[in-house]
Amino acid sequence: MPEFVINKNIVEKNIDFMLAKAQKSNTVFRPHFKTHQSAEIGKLFLKKGIKQITVSSLKMAEFFANNGFSDITIAIPANLNQIEKLNSLAERIQLNIILANAEIDSELIKKLSAKLGIFVEINLGYNRSGINIDNLAEIEKITNNIISNKLKFKGFLSHYGNTYSAKSTKEIIEIYNKSTEKFLALKQKYKQLNPIVSIGDTPSCSLVEDFSGIDEIRPGNFVYYDLMQYALGVCKLSDISAYVKATVIAKYPERNELIIHCGAVHLSKEFIEFKGEKTFGKIVETENNTITHIVDNMNITSLSQEHGIVKCSVEKFNKYNLYDQIKILAVHSCLSANLMKD
Amino acid sequence: MPEFVINKNIVEKNIDFMLAKAQKSNTVFRPHFKTHQSAEIGKLFLKKGIKQITVSSLKMAEFFANNGFSDITIAIPANLNQIEKLNSLAERIQLNIILANAEIDSELIKKLSAKLGIFVEINLGYNRSGINIDNLAEIEKITNNIISNKLKFKGFLSHYGNTYSAKSTKEIIEIYNKSTEKFLALKQKYKQLNPIVSIGDTPSCSLVEDFSGIDEIRPGNFVYYDLMQYALGVCKLSDISAYVKATVIAKYPERNELIIHCGAVHLSKEFIEFKGEKTFGKIVETENNTITHIVDNMNITSLSQEHGIVKCSVEKFNKYNLYDQIKILAVHSCLSANLMKD
Repeated sequence: MPEFVINKNIVEKNIDFMLAKAQKSNTVFRPHFKTHQSAEIGKLFLKKGIKQITVSSLKMAEFFANNGFSDITIAIPANLNQIEKLNSLAERIQLNIILANAEIDSELIKKLSAKLGIFVEINLGYNRSGINIDNLAEIEKITNNIISNKLKFKGFLSHYGNTYSAKSTKEIIEIYNKSTEKFLALKQKYKQLNPIVSIGDTPSCSLVEDFSGIDEIRPGNFVYYDLMQYALGVCKLSDISAYVKATVIAKYPERNELIIHCGAVHLSKEFIEFKGEKTFGKIVETENNTITHIVDNMNITSLSQEHGIVKCSVEKFNKYNLYDQIKILAVHSCLSANLMKD
Repeated sequence: MPEFVINKNIVEKNIDFMLAKAQKSNTVFRPHFKTHQSAEIGKLFLKKGIKQITVSSLKMAEFFANNGFSDITIAIPANLNQIEKLNSLAERIQLNIILANAEIDSELIKKLSAKLGIFVEINLGYNRSGINIDNLAEIEKITNNIISNKLKFKGFLSHYGNTYSAKSTKEIIEIYNKSTEKFLALKQKYKQLNPIVSIGDTPSCSLVEDFSGIDEIRPGNFVYYDLMQYALGVCKLSDISAYVKATVIAKYPERNELIIHCGAVHLSKEFIEFKGEKTFGKIVETENNTITHIVDNMNITSLSQEHGIVKCSVEKFNKYNLYDQIKILAVHSCLSANLMKD
């Protein structure tokens, strides 16, 4: 079976890197655990004193509450159908939720525990969830609603997810600067409430040096990084702490293709354009469990449920034998780690 | 959390349909369990006397051997690094493996248990794994290798996976007929060995009426079907036995988009073109847990790890309230079931 291989030394180095940067800017580091979803990786954070984390579902919050974390933000608009479970978890840990619409049913909001921390999610251009930064009436309405119901207003949270589709590192930093300028103006407007402003994408958190004004960062992917982040210019190959090991199970010289036991249930169907080619993952070489380079003239061109097809040059095709193990840099480590977590 | 909802009555109807068809053609029905990977769904097959199954990994074979199945084919080229585990499982059940290359190391092949059934995989145009049907020298070589090592040669196995990219039901049937004609000629050539010929894709198994000459069928997806099969014309909406239930967690009238808690870790990143639009899943309505229709003017246009974006017309946007449950027909049920299996 394919194996998800983690280099814990690099994981620790990545944690240290992000923690040091946050500390330098006097910013709280609240890593997003959706990437690894692992109690074992969680321990590496605990070792460094990091107990405040981010997750993307109530289920993950419950899991990490049972694994040593005492302050958790669920960074997806709260499903208020789950009020009882949210309130109950808020009895055990500091639980923070987000609201991303002004029109919350007033009966529902009354039922929320005063122990829950509440963030208002703001959309700064990614256009997924969050109230538009320009929609001041809505922001005012939901904020007042929280306060008038004597709930714990924590501040504003945003995900600058549009950095993932940037074309250069310069563009990532521009997105960060432009978004942050607007976000800090909102913070200033609500300064009497002393709001926390929280942001969280790996591209900008990796590249920006100074988080001045931002109270909290929530990157997740940085713990492993992946081909997508490497292609964006966000990390070096040696910063990538995870790869997938798979076996060559068939070889076809008539089309220079290796078939590997590694498919959509291991890598996910995520793909990117990398050096002009559509790829579902790249073959890499490693030294001391660290990726040293991406192998040229080999490309994962197709995935079905359990099979992968690796298109090669003749020379590369001939280098690999049946039942050799091959190392793969996944396009998106969060999705691959999720698939291979058991 | 999103929920994978299964209508067991439809599952049973789909099993009955495929079983009856196989019986009519005097063909063994050996369903592929990679689609559901579920002991509970397995029981519905056992109830109908079906104990011969197909899986796509050794791990799945071990799982279903522990759940009542006594005759299992692992329909992915065997990884002969795992000979001990394969031999050991072959002591407990009738285990069949496939070889998909002539150049198997002769030392490895000698280590295989004589209890293992061995199929040679043939490529009839899908171009994933399997020896090309025209490569008679290779087919002869591997077949002789199996026999001269006194191993149990079972026959030839193929997956007409190219039916999945057909443009019409007519083309699916043409692929079936063309592939089967060649496959049966191979069977005829090796008739003194009395080979089983085994095929297995859901599109052709669903549409073809008469499997004459084919000894065994291995469809998997038919148990649930999905949007991809519906779009191909392979099933009716009322044949689809599974959908995903998710919650609307945010609404944005300025762009007529609903945000649902349902992302790539629930639906997978598989997408298709459906009625001219790229879609990651369609919203459906149901009656008595049966899909009655696909809702027009609503489309899942984007998925991140846990969030989905549903683009709507104004009218459809206004029909759904915050925290409503919404029903989704997944593009590929095998991948969605795999993601949501725990």
